[in-house]
Parts: sequence; C-alpha cells; structure tokens
Amino acid sequence: MDVMQLQQDGAELCSACGVICGAVGAGRLRIQGAGGNGSHLQPAEGCSSQPQPVGSTDSAGHWGRLRPGSGVRERCVLYIKPEPNRSRSRVVLGALRRGPAAMAMRGPGGAALRRRSGGLAAARRRGPAMAEDAAVRAQAEVVRRLKHDKADPDEIAKEVAKLLEMKAQLGGDEGKHKFVLKTPKGTRDYSPKQMAIRERVFNAIISCFKRHGAEVIDTPVFELKETLTGKYGEDSKLIYDLKDQGGELLSLRYDLTVPFARYLAMNKITNIKRYHIAKVYRRDNPAMTRGRYREFYQCDFDIAGQFDPMIPDAECLKIVHEILSDLQLGDFLVKVNDRRILDGMFAVCGVPDSKFRTICSSVDKLDKVPWEEVRSEMVGEKGLSPEAADHIGEYVQLHGGLELIEQLLQDPKLSQNKLAKEGLGDMKLLFEYLTLFGITGKISFDLSLARGLDYYTGVIFEAVLLQQENEHVEEPVSVGSVAGGGRYDGLVGMFDPKGRKVPCVGVSIGIERIFSILEQRVEASEEKIRTTETQVLVASAQKKLLEERLKLIAELWDAGIKAEVLYKKNPKLLNQLQYCEDTGIPLVAIVGEQELKDGVVKLRVVATREEVRPRAGWCEGDQLLDPSSHPIPGQPWSLIVPALQWCPQAVHCKVALLAHIFSVVPKGTGRLEVRAGD
Amino acid sequence: MDVMQLQQDGAELCSACGVICGAVGAGRLRIQGAGGNGSHLQPAEGCSSQPQPVGSTDSAGHWGRLRPGSGVRERCVLYIKPEPNRSRSRVVLGALRRGPAAMAMRGPGGAALRRRSGGLAAARRRGPAMAEDAAVRAQAEVVRRLKHDKADPDEIAKEVAKLLEMKAQLGGDEGKHKFVLKTPKGTRDYSPKQMAIRERVFNAIISCFKRHGAEVIDTPVFELKETLTGKYGEDSKLIYDLKDQGGELLSLRYDLTVPFARYLAMNKITNIKRYHIAKVYRRDNPAMTRGRYREFYQCDFDIAGQFDPMIPDAECLKIVHEILSDLQLGDFLVKVNDRRILDGMFAVCGVPDSKFRTICSSVDKLDKVPWEEVRSEMVGEKGLSPEAADHIGEYVQLHGGLELIEQLLQDPKLSQNKLAKEGLGDMKLLFEYLTLFGITGKISFDLSLARGLDYYTGVIFEAVLLQQENEHVEEPVSVGSVAGGGRYDGLVGMFDPKGRKVPCVGVSIGIERIFSILEQRVEASEEKIRTTETQVLVASAQKKLLEERLKLIAELWDAGIKAEVLYKKNPKLLNQLQYCEDTGIPLVAIVGEQELKDGVVKLRVVATREEVRPRAGWCEGDQLLDPSSHPIPGQPWSLIVPALQWCPQAVHCKVALLAHIFSVVPKGTGRLEVRAGD
Repeated sequence: MDVMQLQQDGAELCSACGVICGAVGAGRLRIQGAGGNGSHLQPAEGCSSQPQPVGSTDSAGHWGRLRPGSGVRERCVLYIKPEPNRSRSRVVLGALRRGPAAMAMRGPGGAALRRRSGGLAAARRRGPAMAEDAAVRAQAEVVRRLKHDKADPDEIAKEVAKLLEMKAQLGGDEGKHKFVLKTPKGTRDYSPKQMAIRERVFNAIISCFKRHGAEVIDTPVFELKETLTGKYGEDSKLIYDLKDQGGELLSLRYDLTVPFARYLAMNKITNIKRYHIAKVYRRDNPAMTRGRYREFYQCDFDIAGQFDPMIPDAECLKIVHEILSDLQLGDFLVKVNDRRILDGMFAVCGVPDSKFRTICSSVDKLDKVPWEEVRSEMVGEKGLSPEAADHIGEYVQLHGGLELIEQLLQDPKLSQNKLAKEGLGDMKLLFEYLTLFGITGKISFDLSLARGLDYYTGVIFEAVLLQQENEHVEEPVSVGSVAGGGRYDGLVGMFDPKGRKVPCVGVSIGIERIFSILEQRVEASEEKIRTTETQVLVASAQKKLLEERLKLIAELWDAGIKAEVLYKKNPKLLNQLQYCEDTGIPLVAIVGEQELKDGVVKLRVVATREEVRPRAGWCEGDQLLDPSSHPIPGQPWSLIVPALQWCPQAVHCKVALLAHIFSVVPKGTGRLEVRAGD
Repeated sequence: MDVMQLQQDGAELCSACGVICGAVGAGRLRIQGAGGNGSHLQPAEGCSSQPQPVGSTDSAGHWGRLRPGSGVRERCVLYIKPEPNRSRSRVVLGALRRGPAAMAMRGPGGAALRRRSGGLAAARRRGPAMAEDAAVRAQAEVVRRLKHDKADPDEIAKEVAKLLEMKAQLGGDEGKHKFVLKTPKGTRDYSPKQMAIRERVFNAIISCFKRHGAEVIDTPVFELKETLTGKYGEDSKLIYDLKDQGGELLSLRYDLTVPFARYLAMNKITNIKRYHIAKVYRRDNPAMTRGRYREFYQCDFDIAGQFDPMIPDAECLKIVHEILSDLQLGDFLVKVNDRRILDGMFAVCGVPDSKFRTICSSVDKLDKVPWEEVRSEMVGEKGLSPEAADHIGEYVQLHGGLELIEQLLQDPKLSQNKLAKEGLGDMKLLFEYLTLFGITGKISFDLSLARGLDYYTGVIFEAVLLQQENEHVEEPVSVGSVAGGGRYDGLVGMFDPKGRKVPCVGVSIGIERIFSILEQRVEASEEKIRTTETQVLVASAQKKLLEERLKLIAELWDAGIKAEVLYKKNPKLLNQLQYCEDTGIPLVAIVGEQELKDGVVKLRVVATREEVRPRAGWCEGDQLLDPSSHPIPGQPWSLIVPALQWCPQAVHCKVALLAHIFSVVPKGTGRLEVRAGD
C-alpha cells in the first residue's frame, strides 16, 4: 500500500514531521483534529514543529513540507489505515525523504508499511543525506578530540565554527539545542490569556457548587496502584503508572471519583457533599483541537449518604443545568437513564446475564454510530441472537419524558422485571423533582444512554451541547459530552474493610471541551482579555525619578492597590503610557518635579487622557474628608475623576484617595464604569 | 547491634507498625518528626495506623504497641543508625514480634541488622503466630471449596462466620479489606476544614502576586524527562519518573522554575512577570508533621526580562515581606546573599575553582550545624587547606545591612575580586531600593547563605520564621525556611535552540510549612471554621412539604443564593435547625402550611432565634420597594432582620428580599455583622 493507493482508498493525508497519533471513527476515515477546512493535526512526539494544515503540499507536489528542528530531518507523511471493525483505527506511519518518490519508512508503523508495500522503489534511503550526516559526525569528533586534548582555543573555535556551518547547511539548528522543546504528548501549557478564560469557567462552576452548599477536598495526584485496580474495566490500560523507584507502586489518578471513594472509606465518612476540581490523567489518543487531552481537568460534585430516593440525584441534574446555562454555551440536552432499566431491558430482551456488560458497551456507541452497525456488532461479534438484538433496538430508540416513563411502566415485559420496575419508578420520581426545579425542558429520558464505567448502579446521565458555535448546521447535532455522572452505591464499599456501603451520586463537568469552545469564541469576537488586574502604573515624566516612583508604589502596594512600575531607571513617558495601553491598565500616577514640590501626584485616565489636578481642602491630617460623598454613584467615570483631587497637605491622602478610586473600578476589568450603589 | 545497644549508642527509638523512613542530621541523632515532646513519627508505608508517640512503651515495657490492620501483625521498632559522615543517615529497621525478647527482622534493613546481630536469640520467628496463620488459611480454603461446589448457603454462611471469627482473634480485619487504605507515602488528603485554611493562605498569596501585576500560567504536572535532566545537581535522584509505557519518557515536575524556563524558551518569550501555583514532587524523606511532603505546593512569582539592575530583585523581596507580614506568622527574617559574592569570597580565600560548588554546599549547612562542623567537613572530607577554611570562616559569620556592604567594598581582598565587587555593588543598590520600600528592618545581608540549586547566578535569598508559635523559646530561633529564591540568568538559555539568555529572578513561597503553622494555630484557638458558604437552609415545619421546599430552593439557587435542603421527605424541624448549628448556616427559610396559605416564607436567624413575620406593603408586583433604604448601615443585624418582611402579594419578592439580605451578610462567614456602607 503506497501513498497513491492510500489516497485512492479514500485516506486523508496530512504531514508533520515525526510520529503522529491519529484515530479513525469506526468504519469511517477521519483524522483526529482534521475537523474541517484549515484545521490541523497535532505535532508529533519528539517534534517541536507546528501542526501542518491538512492536505498541504510542497512545491514538488508532495504531501507535507520539511520542518527542520529537533533532529527530525525527514519529510514525514501520515497514513491512515481504516479498520472498519474497530471504533478506533491504527495509524500507519511512513517518513518521506527529500528526493522525489524517495520514501523511507521507520518506526513500528513504518515497518508494517514496508511489509505491505513490498519492493516499492520508494523504500530506500537517500545517499547524499547520509553522506552529509557522516561528515557532520566526523567534524564533531574532530572538535571533541581537540577539546579533550586541551588544544589551542583558537583552533578549537575554528573547528567549532566549521561544524556549526555544516549543521546549518543540513537545515538543522542543533548547535546548542540539546532539548526537545515541547510539553508531553496530549498536554499543554496555559498561557496567561488562556488562564483568564479558564478562570472564568472555574468561577462559574465553583460558584454553582458553593451555591449548593458543597465543601471542597483535595487528594494527591497519584494513588497506590492497587487503589485504582479493578475500577475502570477495559480502560485500565489507559492509567499512567509511575516508575518503580523503590517503595510503593503508584499510578496517576484516572478520575476524581475513585479517590473520593477511597477518601470516604479511609476516613469513615458516610455523609458529605463535596466538590473537587483537579487534573486527571489518561493515556488516551489525544485530539487536542477538540479538547481531548491526556492531562485534563475534571470538576466533580458528589453527594454521599443514605437519603430519601432521587433528591440528591435531582440536585446533580439541576447543577448541570445551572452550569451549562450560566456558561452560555448554546443549547444543550441532558440524557438520563438508569443502569437498572438497562439491565432489566437486557433481561426481558433475552440477553444472557454473562453478556450484559458487553452488550451494554455496544449500546454505549449509539451516540456515535447508527443502530444498524451496533446491531451487527451485537449479532456478528458478540453472538447475540438477532431476535434479542431487534428487541433491544425497539427500546433503545425511545426517548422522552414523564409520558415515556408511564408508558414503559405499563410495558407488559418491562413491568414484569423487578430491576426495570424499580428503575422506572425512581425515574418517575426524578422527573417529578425535575419538574419542581423547572428544568425538564432540557432533560431527556433516553434508553440508549449506557455510559462505560463499571461502577454505576442507578441513575446515569450525560449532557451534550446541541449546536456548534458557527451555527452552519441546519439541525441541532451533538458536539460531544460536556458533563456526565450517575449513582454509584457500591464503590465506597469496595474500599471499606467491612464492605460498608455508602450510597453516592455525582456529576463531573468536563472543562476542556467547554474551554476550547469559549477560547474559539473569544478569538472570533476579538474581545481583548486582560491578563493582569493592575489598577495603576506609577510613572514619571522626567528622568532621575526612580526613587520617587519606588517610594510611591510601595505606599500603593501597602494600601492594597494593584500597581506596577517599569523596571527602568529613566523610562520615557510615552513608553509608560504605551505599556498601559498594551496591558489595559486604566490609570497612570505620574510623578513629576512640580508634583514633588507640591507634595502631590497627578492621576491620568489612560483611555480618555483626562488628568486630575491637585487642589487643597481634601483632607484633615491623615483623614480624607468623606470621600464617599464625592463620587456620585451612577455617574460615568469621566465625571468623577476630575472631582478627585489630591490634598497637598498630607501625602497619606494619596493612598486613601487612590484606594477609594479603585473601589469604584470593577475588579479585573479595564472598563471604567461605576455601578450604582458603589 | 540490638535494641539496648542502639539505645546506649544514643539512638532514639520510636514505634509504629511497618517500615518507617527517617533521617538523621549530620553527626547528630534526630528522628524526623521527633521534634519535641508529644511529636510523632509518620506511619509506615503499607500501614494505615496512626503515628505513635516517640518513646512510647507498652505494658510489657517494649517499645511500641501492636497496631492491628492492613496485614501488619508484628510489633515493629525503628532503629536509627547514625552515620556521622553523611548529612542523612540510613534507618535500620527491625520488627519485634509479640513474645518477650522474641524479635524478628525483615526487609532490607532487617537483613542488615540480622547480619550485624549475628546469633542473637531475638532473631527467630514466633511459632504460635504461624500456626494461627495456617489455620486461617485452611479455613479460607474450606469456604472457597464450598462456594465453588455451590454448597448449601447456610453451610457456607456458617463456615464464613467461623473464618471471620478466627481472623478477628488474630487481630487483623482482613475480611473484605483488599485495599491498603492510605494515600501514598509523603502525601495527604486535604479535608474541607484544611481546604478552608489552605484557601486563606492562597488568597493572601495570590492577591499579593496580583497586586504586583503578575499574570498567571499553568504547565503540565509532568515534563519530558530530558527537560529536567541536569538542572538539579545531586537532587536529581529525588525526581519521580513515570513508567515507560511506550512513547515519551516522562517525569513529574520537581519545581516550577524549570517548567517556567522551558515555557519561555518554547514560546520565545523574553519578557514576562508571572505567577504559578501548583504541586511539585520530590522523592524525599517526608517529615509531614513539620510540613515536609513528597507532594507539595509551590507558589512562584518570577520576573523575566532584561531590565535595569536590582529593581525586579527588590520587588521579589518586597513580595516576600508583604506575604509573610500579611499571613501574621510572627517575626521573620529574609537572608540575602549573591552567588557572585560567594564565588569571589571563595576565590580570595584560596579555594580552587574546582572546589567552589562542593565548598558552597558545605557553607549551605551553616543554618543547621555550627561552623566547627562545617569547617571540619571542608578540611577533613573535602581537602581544603585549614588556612582557606579559616579565612572563609571569618567571612561567613558576617551579617548586617548597608554598613556591612560598605565595609566589604573596602575589604582589601574582596574589593580586588571582579565577581565579588560586582556582587557587592549590586547588593548596595538592592539595599538602597529596599530602604525606599521601607523593609530593610527584616532583611539581612548574610554571607553564610548559599542555597543549593545549581542554576542561581546572582542574588539569592531565603526567608525564615524566627519564633515558634508557642513562644517557649527565649531567643528567636529559626523554625525553617518558608520562602526562597534568587536570580537565574542562564536557565532559559539552556533550553533555547540558540542559547539566547533571558535574565530571570523569582521567589517561591513554601506553603506547606506555613499551612501547618496556621492549622495548629486554628486548632489551638478552637476557632470554628465554616467549610461551606451556605446562606440559608430551606426547611419545613410540617410533613409533606418536600415539593414546596424544592420549589423554593430552586428559586433561591436561580437567584444566586447559596441554599441547602435536607434530602429527606419529612425531616424534623429540630434536625433541620441542628444542621444549621453544626454547619454554621446563619438563616433558615421555613415553609409551613400557614405561610403557604399566605404565600410567604418565614425567615429565622439561627443564632438569635429571631423570626421575621410577613407583612404587607413591601412590594409592587414583582418589584421590591426600595429595599436598600430599610436596612440601616451600621446597625446590628438583629435590628435589621425584623424590619425585613415578606410581601404576601408577590412570591417573587421572597427571592429579591433574600438576595438583599444576603448582600449584607459578609461572604463565607457565619458572623451576622453589617458593615457600614453596605
């Protein structure tokens, strides 16, 4: 199979230099991250280059371009090998060398490709590049030997220069670069701007959790390996283990639910409502442009304790509703089901007990693939009888509200099953409570919702966003889950020495997808986001005033005012004002020779260029005279500032007055509005 | 060497069950965590028992007591083996079995002890215990066989009961307990109460960082292994590596400075002032009662960029001063030195270039051991000439302020050394700026401050608390470092492909020690800390009002009011009020039949038991009539509450009025004060 062949097979090609991980939806070819025009694949492991546009070609018409850096010198091409029977396909990789049609393949994927492509002329190493490599190595050896022999420094310098030149010609800049400059695969840094957006999201979520009376806990980022064992079924292979360096065997936490259960059992807590916001770790295939990472935040809210049925469960759904409404992510839907209804349904459809879990995991795929495929998996791979599958098919296509629950409670088969009847009874109660909360409009009882985790025992739910932000879609489509949860009454008992159960129900908000939606929205709107909260820059108009600036800013800091100063002895006023414009600082306190003589400071509003002139009579001794009566609530800032004046008699007033001014500037914004009542 | 022998050798003994890690100060015997009367050693790995008091004995006069649980059934004793030539001594472990003088030794330490103790009668296994083990195993096998054969359930139950009884007699409760219920060694959970204290500390630190105009970033918890390589000198052995599960080799971050430098180089940032608060990981010997953990928070503030000398450096010291003052941890001192002064001093004292680093690390011990010991290490172990050592001794005992700097600038030898002169010149400038900031009173130029990390290039500093909270000490003694930092101008260049340097200076606040001081203080003061911010509990006085409660609480949540409800269908009013007392909720909104008829809600102040009676005339339609005019600023809450009354005409007012009430209750506290101006 060569490149052309792959293209004819419908494969999308994308280039980046190095190893790229991709995944393909079951039976369909789709490169992760290649979601549309101009979208990008992620850069490869061990490669610091930027992602390459999908389908880009170089001047010779080859896929991809040469990206020098970090020792990767080949031109690399990504091949996608579709495997229709698996939900995720393997990615086959090959590396394309610089000469036309000269293709070298490396790595495990490359080996597979080599086997398949047989005697393809493409699969040979390019001679000249190898010769160049050897020459560089030889020259490096010359340098090493000279250094070792403590040769004449000039001679060493000459040979080093020659070596660097040779390397430069090769296109790599490996001179001083001993490190691969990247974050680990599937992770990222947050820049200050991203942190500002992230904090908005966290604030919305935390204030909701606190509104519902939750306490907060924290647990270590790693747990004993055995704490995580046997909790995640097949997904256990995605757990990050720590290296055995002596002592305990440890693993990074995979979610916050298992550490929570461990915490409850360890501290013998039977009753708590807590939230926990922290990073969790999964060695999954990352799709970072879609918000899927190997290190990502979970925001969990859980209620543990023995209570009357469905009241805590209903509160969890109310919380999802509040948070998704608050974040204004567009329309959403919360699908609800119950593990007991699923199991009862499987039983009445004639699924053998031993196949409950595996059939359940087939049902779980219904949000991604059509029923026909799920059915053929059930019958073909999992050996379910066609009749049973068809029977399931009738149920799992049902979704609705109270009337559907009533209908199923009358269903001749389901109503005979104890589990299903219990589940349906509770579901009815749940919807009654949701009606009292006024949120049934966005909640759908959906028999196809299964959720993978082993530990759920009752209600399960998942929230999906219905529209993409670009709104090019005609009918609402799911853009993926942003929250999920359910009841897990058995998990704490797995940790308790005596197996004592603590019933729990909880919800986990997936921040990363929400974050990437908001990030894209901010970028599209060109909203300018401040990354600091600085209220005033202490500036000087003349030279040699560093000391005065430092004295003033210390006063401001000590008074709790957020202030900055440029770290220059003699900065130009223009540069200082420019710094305010760039970073959104609303005010400048200017120290000048005249102000120093008068014992005052001039205040300037950056946006309007208004200035405050000092005037007497504003204070008595250290006390500012009733400052609150002067700025008039509801008046625009521009009217207030000129009214704020320095008292020439008391230096102390500067601070009191500034503190007052800043109490009317809304926190963290550069906007100069005063809200009524302030 | 047996127990008695160890005691005669001056070893302190401490008991806990299992493996305990301890460390001993150079040449002195000190068990980590055994800092004084009543202090504790940490529990062992693989052991869920509580720490044991130092020196405790059981009724038979043996060290330690039997702690059943998690499979550890021996009585264990910790032996400390002093190794005077190393700063940390190995801990030799032995396990003492139940019979008098019957001692078994296990584990690597035990093996070493066995070899040394030779034919000691103590080293033999106890027969009866082994027989008991075998009996339990046999009984377990009986149960397994019965279950496998699907025997009569009654018979199985009988044998299970027998098995459980046998296990109970053995003292272990291993019935259902398959997990070791603990957090990994050197880590801990934070309970809601601890989180409340932790958030106070973070808030003080973050508001200081923001006051100084810092942005915030975040980086992944792990980095490529090679990113950390070669940055920490000898301490590299303390880095946690992740297991090689295919893909990149990863390590947990060891500090926040190296990830920051990697971030700067990767994003080609040459100018930033940022803070970063996150957990870092060190496989060190934990001493958790003293706030030393393997997972711990660092709060870092750094200024990167090419600026005029010492202005950012002075700001870092100002920040340390502000934070330590703000947290009210008692008296503190910030020691300051400069790497260049140290190096210049070594040069003029006749230390060979090759010994700078190792002599520097000897000097670094001066805060823990007296000069005589450091001197003998320099001369005896490190081969320094006695003259050079004595010369160093004269310098490193100097500390002071500007006058000392002036004096050293006149020092005939130091002033001839280029590095020292540069460093002293900058130190003088620094102290001038610190004078302008008004903080020289707590800053000491101290020639003995060395700091271990390789990457410092200029100013270094470290803050220590001077008094313990109990104030039993007569003269101020250092209770350990709570902050440290310095200038590292070369670190970013180590990551940059072209070796471009970005000068940096920064400070790291060590939260854990501060946190344990504050935690102890809170415990001593018996201050009641609220762990939720709930403002009102929605309660009912009669039965069958769950629906009404849920309707009201949804209204309150939607209005942004923090509210809770008991998850019971028919809770007793007394229980609901008790819940408020226990959790500090200040208000109860009571739904009763009469209130429902009138369309109102009764409000009750938990602390004073005052109640609000509904009265007409408070609103028009949905609008509350000028609520702000009614509560009088400055008046105590008890006068305001009776004035707040429900309007029987509009249900909507409940929410508006509650929202108003809560705007005058200080956030997060249960205190019912109204501040003037609110």
